[in-house]
Amino acid sequence: MTDSSKGVVKPVGELELQTVQAGTAAQTQVLLGDEDGAPNFAMRRFVMGEGGGMPFHTNAVEHEQYVLRGRARVRIGDEVHDVRADNAVYIPAGVPHSYDVVEAPFEFLCVVPNSPDTIELVEQDS
Amino acid sequence: MTDSSKGVVKPVGELELQTVQAGTAAQTQVLLGDEDGAPNFAMRRFVMGEGGGMPFHTNAVEHEQYVLRGRARVRIGDEVHDVRADNAVYIPAGVPHSYDVVEAPFEFLCVVPNSPDTIELVEQDS
Repeated sequence: MTDSSKGVVKPVGELELQTVQAGTAAQTQVLLGDEDGAPNFAMRRFVMGEGGGMPFHTNAVEHEQYVLRGRARVRIGDEVHDVRADNAVYIPAGVPHSYDVVEAPFEFLCVVPNSPDTIELVEQDS
Repeated sequence: MTDSSKGVVKPVGELELQTVQAGTAAQTQVLLGDEDGAPNFAMRRFVMGEGGGMPFHTNAVEHEQYVLRGRARVRIGDEVHDVRADNAVYIPAGVPHSYDVVEAPFEFLCVVPNSPDTIELVEQDS
C-alpha cells in the first residue's frame, strides 16, 4: 500500500517498457497510476520507433496527450494532423484514431481516466 | 461547444501564459480541459524562471506531473527531491509541497481532476 502522505518521483528511463500488442514498433509504460495511489487517472508514456504506429482504432476512454519527441501523422476521426514535440493532443472517447511515425522516436504522454478501457480496431475507408 | 467527434491538436507555444499569483517568476497555461470537451481532468503546463518557485502549500486535488525541462528542489511532505527533465512526479491531494528552481526554465506538466481546487499556504517548520 502506498503511503498517502508521501510523494513519488520516478526517472522514467528506469521504468520497464512493454510492447503494445495492437501496434507496430510501439512500446508503453505506466508512469503514474493505481500503484502510486492515484485515484482518478493514469499517466502513461508511449515510444514508437522507425516505421511504427498504431492502426485506426477506438478506445472507450478519452486521451489527453503531450508529445515529447519526434513527429507523426495522427488521424483523429476524419482529420489527419501533423503532430510534433510540444503539441498537446485531445482524442475524445470513442473517436477513431491512428498513429504513423514520421520522425522516430515518436514519444508522447497519454493520460486516461481509471475507468475500464476497451480497444477496437476500425476498418479504414480510405 | 466543442464538436465531440473531433480531436484537438495545439502547439503549446501559441497558448497564453498567465502569472501564478502565489508563486515567484511562475507562469501557467491550460493545455487541455473543459474548453476542449475533456470531461474528467485538465492538463496544464507550468514555466518557472530563474529564482522562481512556489511556497509550501496544499491543494484539494492530486497532481500527476511530468518534467519537460530544467531542475528544481521539490519538497513533498517531509521529503525534498531533486527533480529534473523526464521525471514523473505524484503529489497526493492535501500533501503540502513547494518548488524551488535550480536550473531555469523549469517546465512541467501538471494534470488535475476537474473537481474544485483550493490552494492553502503552509507555514514551514524548517
